[in-house]
Amino acid sequence: MRDELKLENIRSNLIRQEETIIFSMIERAQFACNSAIYEKGKIIPDYNDSFMFFLLSETEKIHSKVRRFTAPDEHPFSDNLPEPFPTNMNYTWPIKKTGININSRILSVYTSEMIPLICKSGDDGNYGSSSVNDTNVLQALSKRIHYGKYVAESKFIKDEKKYTDLIRSSDSQGIYDLLTDAKVEELVLDRVEMKASAYGQDPLTRNNEYKIDPKVIRDVYFKWIIPMTKDVEVMYLLERLD
Amino acid sequence: MRDELKLENIRSNLIRQEETIIFSMIERAQFACNSAIYEKGKIIPDYNDSFMFFLLSETEKIHSKVRRFTAPDEHPFSDNLPEPFPTNMNYTWPIKKTGININSRILSVYTSEMIPLICKSGDDGNYGSSSVNDTNVLQALSKRIHYGKYVAESKFIKDEKKYTDLIRSSDSQGIYDLLTDAKVEELVLDRVEMKASAYGQDPLTRNNEYKIDPKVIRDVYFKWIIPMTKDVEVMYLLERLD
Repeated sequence: MRDELKLENIRSNLIRQEETIIFSMIERAQFACNSAIYEKGKIIPDYNDSFMFFLLSETEKIHSKVRRFTAPDEHPFSDNLPEPFPTNMNYTWPIKKTGININSRILSVYTSEMIPLICKSGDDGNYGSSSVNDTNVLQALSKRIHYGKYVAESKFIKDEKKYTDLIRSSDSQGIYDLLTDAKVEELVLDRVEMKASAYGQDPLTRNNEYKIDPKVIRDVYFKWIIPMTKDVEVMYLLERLD
Repeated sequence: MRDELKLENIRSNLIRQEETIIFSMIERAQFACNSAIYEKGKIIPDYNDSFMFFLLSETEKIHSKVRRFTAPDEHPFSDNLPEPFPTNMNYTWPIKKTGININSRILSVYTSEMIPLICKSGDDGNYGSSSVNDTNVLQALSKRIHYGKYVAESKFIKDEKKYTDLIRSSDSQGIYDLLTDAKVEELVLDRVEMKASAYGQDPLTRNNEYKIDPKVIRDVYFKWIIPMTKDVEVMYLLERLD
């Protein structure tokens, strides 16, 4: 099996991504919800989408030019991105190429559900800083959740016969159940809660005053990150034999 | 005195910026030095500057449109930035307007001195990720160091007579000495080392395996961040009476 698909490598990659997610959320939590930045047609004159989406999509244009979205583990939130600069470097592609991209769902859940949990309510006028940090969080969430493609490919290779039967009978629930490892999920939840606690409080005082309540980070993983990752895994497997 | 200029508020702002600096450096340290991204005329065809500077300056263009650099505590690394969108929001400006911007020095020290300390040597091909993280670190460093303007204004107001005499006689060394509080600096160094230790190791094992050696973060503050902040303070004060 290719190194990128070894389950222990995928796990250590996902574990490292926890820092990126938690750090970026703690950074975002410096600022209020600032819901105006998520409302379409507000703040920027003659622009149809939201202020935050302007920053996100313009950032993606730059990243597209330097090939971000030619990588198998990167997925854009916006369309009509510019072509990358020519290069002689190419990514290896250890997973099946599919069009699966659930970023619109991630974006919607993030702005409507996660932001009110992470940030204090209200408007502090820090629109630019909030949106720049949103871009970082969203890119981190998207990467983590779409990493489900790697997880799924790895599990498929290990258990090809069982998955093939379930895929042939379009048994989504059966695939979901076979993918699920409740013990590992519980470990992930405990670990992210502990990390959020270590990174989100003053290490000098350790006074249990958190920049984000560690239970919130646990909840974000429990309610959205883990389930959406598994949705990606199921979607991927349903297309695996095409 | 305006709230933004109260020394306790400036200090708590600087303390919070430590997280931003340490988090962003830990994120950058996932990738090798990748010195090719700092070489002019490399990687991007027909582009005169470095790959990293392309990402940094293009990002600044977007941020300029949403008024980042109209804020008194933000300073761009690149020139010829586009005009901001029109708005009816205006920043209050608690410090004297000056053209002081030492970002070219920060950029140079960062790429030649800090990167080899923070990152493992060599080239892992992660040019895009490295440069995106460089942009985050550089913007955090620039903000922290130019916050010296706030520190200087606050100290000036508290001790106007003494500073005025030193400024009138262009006594840079005298200003530098009057600004210096060795005890506070030692506290900062101890605190950032402890934070780097808490944020840079696995909180489950606490096995002293660090993503960045905490002594390196301490050193970065000792050798560059604190001295460059004080340089900004001195430069600011020398122009304070103009």
